[in-house]
Amino acid sequence: MTTTTSSPNAAALAAALPELREAYAALQAKGLKLDLTRGKPSAEQLDLSNGMLALPGTAPTQAARANGTDVRNYGGLDGLPELRAIFAELLDVPAGQLLAGGNASLTLMYDTVAWAMLFGFPESPAPWSREEKVRWICSVPGYDRHFAVCEELGIEMIAVPMKDGGPDVAAIAELVAGDPTIKGLWVVPTYSNPDGSIVSDDVARALVSMPAAAPDFRILWDNAYALHHLTDTETASAPALRLAAEAGNPDRVLMYASTSKITWAGAGVAFLAASPANLAWYKKHLGKASIGPDKVNHLRHALFFGSAGGVREHMRRHREILAPKFEAVTSILAERLGEYGVGTWTDPKGGYFVSLDVVPGTASRVVALAKDAGIALTPAGATFPYGKDPQDQNIRLAPTMPPLEEVTAAMDGVATCVLLAAAEALGG
Amino acid sequence: MTTTTSSPNAAALAAALPELREAYAALQAKGLKLDLTRGKPSAEQLDLSNGMLALPGTAPTQAARANGTDVRNYGGLDGLPELRAIFAELLDVPAGQLLAGGNASLTLMYDTVAWAMLFGFPESPAPWSREEKVRWICSVPGYDRHFAVCEELGIEMIAVPMKDGGPDVAAIAELVAGDPTIKGLWVVPTYSNPDGSIVSDDVARALVSMPAAAPDFRILWDNAYALHHLTDTETASAPALRLAAEAGNPDRVLMYASTSKITWAGAGVAFLAASPANLAWYKKHLGKASIGPDKVNHLRHALFFGSAGGVREHMRRHREILAPKFEAVTSILAERLGEYGVGTWTDPKGGYFVSLDVVPGTASRVVALAKDAGIALTPAGATFPYGKDPQDQNIRLAPTMPPLEEVTAAMDGVATCVLLAAAEALGG
Repeated sequence: MTTTTSSPNAAALAAALPELREAYAALQAKGLKLDLTRGKPSAEQLDLSNGMLALPGTAPTQAARANGTDVRNYGGLDGLPELRAIFAELLDVPAGQLLAGGNASLTLMYDTVAWAMLFGFPESPAPWSREEKVRWICSVPGYDRHFAVCEELGIEMIAVPMKDGGPDVAAIAELVAGDPTIKGLWVVPTYSNPDGSIVSDDVARALVSMPAAAPDFRILWDNAYALHHLTDTETASAPALRLAAEAGNPDRVLMYASTSKITWAGAGVAFLAASPANLAWYKKHLGKASIGPDKVNHLRHALFFGSAGGVREHMRRHREILAPKFEAVTSILAERLGEYGVGTWTDPKGGYFVSLDVVPGTASRVVALAKDAGIALTPAGATFPYGKDPQDQNIRLAPTMPPLEEVTAAMDGVATCVLLAAAEALGG
Repeated sequence: MTTTTSSPNAAALAAALPELREAYAALQAKGLKLDLTRGKPSAEQLDLSNGMLALPGTAPTQAARANGTDVRNYGGLDGLPELRAIFAELLDVPAGQLLAGGNASLTLMYDTVAWAMLFGFPESPAPWSREEKVRWICSVPGYDRHFAVCEELGIEMIAVPMKDGGPDVAAIAELVAGDPTIKGLWVVPTYSNPDGSIVSDDVARALVSMPAAAPDFRILWDNAYALHHLTDTETASAPALRLAAEAGNPDRVLMYASTSKITWAGAGVAFLAASPANLAWYKKHLGKASIGPDKVNHLRHALFFGSAGGVREHMRRHREILAPKFEAVTSILAERLGEYGVGTWTDPKGGYFVSLDVVPGTASRVVALAKDAGIALTPAGATFPYGKDPQDQNIRLAPTMPPLEEVTAAMDGVATCVLLAAAEALGG
């Protein structure tokens, strides 16, 4: 998963410093305005779903009344059965354990944690907000919006470094077994944000089986990129709910997904898959806040895809657009940084990001240099809780949104900034 | 607003008892299956918005990129400017103070109160969940889902009876001035649920001006029926935000509305209008739970209506469908109950409900009788906090969803049940 270069060649960098300064000045002179900050789909990707722009369509009117339900009226907290059937197959969960909601899995995750704070889970000794301290394990580098949910709700985060191949199960298991204030863990099981790692069935089994000191310990299993392959190998996500049930911990895992990066970002459908007890708990609270989700949008998606196979086919069209951009990122990094032995980066087989580790202590400098050259990067530290990367070395690259030629131009500029910062720090 | 009959004629009821028992047996024999429980729009009303079924439409593609924003991509927590402009005019608030959100104003209201519990408002001494007690004033009869939000969040409800013409300002003002644990008040200002009353400008001014012991006292101003007129008189809602600002209490009122009963219930757009400080507070928390609302649905609505005038025109078509149903309800009640002097009911000029007070102590019996005759009514007590009507006399009638002939059949049946229950109680 990870491409490691040899260690930095300080002498070569020192020698190249004048040349790098020149290259950087030339970069600035270009007056670029490029953006690699966020994992947004490109307009070309969004166009793939333009068939939805006129759906469900005016004829036949019956389309608006699938399964005897009038999708235009109130009701049905679980969402439209047709759409749930399609995504139950894709997420490998029973349709009866899958809820189709609004437009954002982030909202489903936020509500889960917020309701745990306000009410606790069924087996919680008390609402979490009444506990003296609530803590949460965050693998790093990780997803800044996960960390923001914890921070907002006053949950103390414990960073555990990711290993090659995913979360550090041994370290996590030790923490979870020994500390009853640890109530949760974020996992992005497939093509993790940002490092692209995949949780194997064995790792998943270990996570759902490990003893937990807190009776209400939960894993929020954010399967945002389950279907977002960049190669022919369409790796299936570990069946976390099933594994958890087999391990005797059926309520440990709540799984989230959405079509934000399948159809439209912000106008898609989010999903929650969970054990019957967790789903009943979730719906009990949801039912006080909502009469039901937008079933017209559910129907729109169900008609557009037709089947799980239709979704898989659709994702291959995304891949055709995305794979060249990721190829551009990694090949430019290899070409430009390899010579100096600078940097370590991932070569993801799916998902939305490349994780780049620069020379320790220079990530902030790289981001600042890039900014001054008109290239927006995710702030250094964003992939760590509280925005603090202790090594100041990780940068998340998001190449999906700009057109390929902009990705190329931006990455060439980023490489210049990485090398200049490295030369300044090591040899300058 | 309210039609009052004379007091019950016990002698006439006693004499009619055998005849009423016969009428009830005949009603049961019909094997009806009718439903007057919830304020849902009818299929005929939903059809009025079928023009949206194929919107925004595939051509021109620019439609998907209004104002330079790609509505198919992430971003824009405030919602689509075009749609906010239309509803800002309709709700008489500055567009800059109006947020267009997801599909449910109930969710916006729930989140407001939940976030007050978790975090407090900016001027709160502490998050409300840290207070020993939080109380809330509920005018009765009122909306059961408002009460459910309070109950869910552990907020103690104080019932204050509605008066002719709206909330009992004097009673509310005395409570709010004297008790710092009272943090909030629900108001449905226009065509209140269920009694149809309208908050005048004077009443609104009093509510936003009255001294409050709690520094963070809030009025949740649920303007669900602002545009839902049943007559030629299209009464404008009191401009609550402006009046609150004039009174020096700009942050006291948060206003909610939605298109649930304008376009589609569950597939519409919800709105929050608030002071700059309240809106900043709301968006600070919303931004942790969401990257933005479904702007494609915002665009769909903006294109469908075109302007505020388009919405008003559309509401007149709803009125054509609804007015005969409300007329049927009130005329059947007058015809059947008048003779016996039984019952008091509202004659609403808008909104979704008729509020019926039967002989005290008989509302539960009426609902049970109706149920056994195949007519589903909102449970007795639903219009009161904790589902407890101390007089057991109020029943909320929701005539919008069934076709006119079913409303007529159901109401004739309800009248029989009301009279039978009255005769049993008074004369039997």
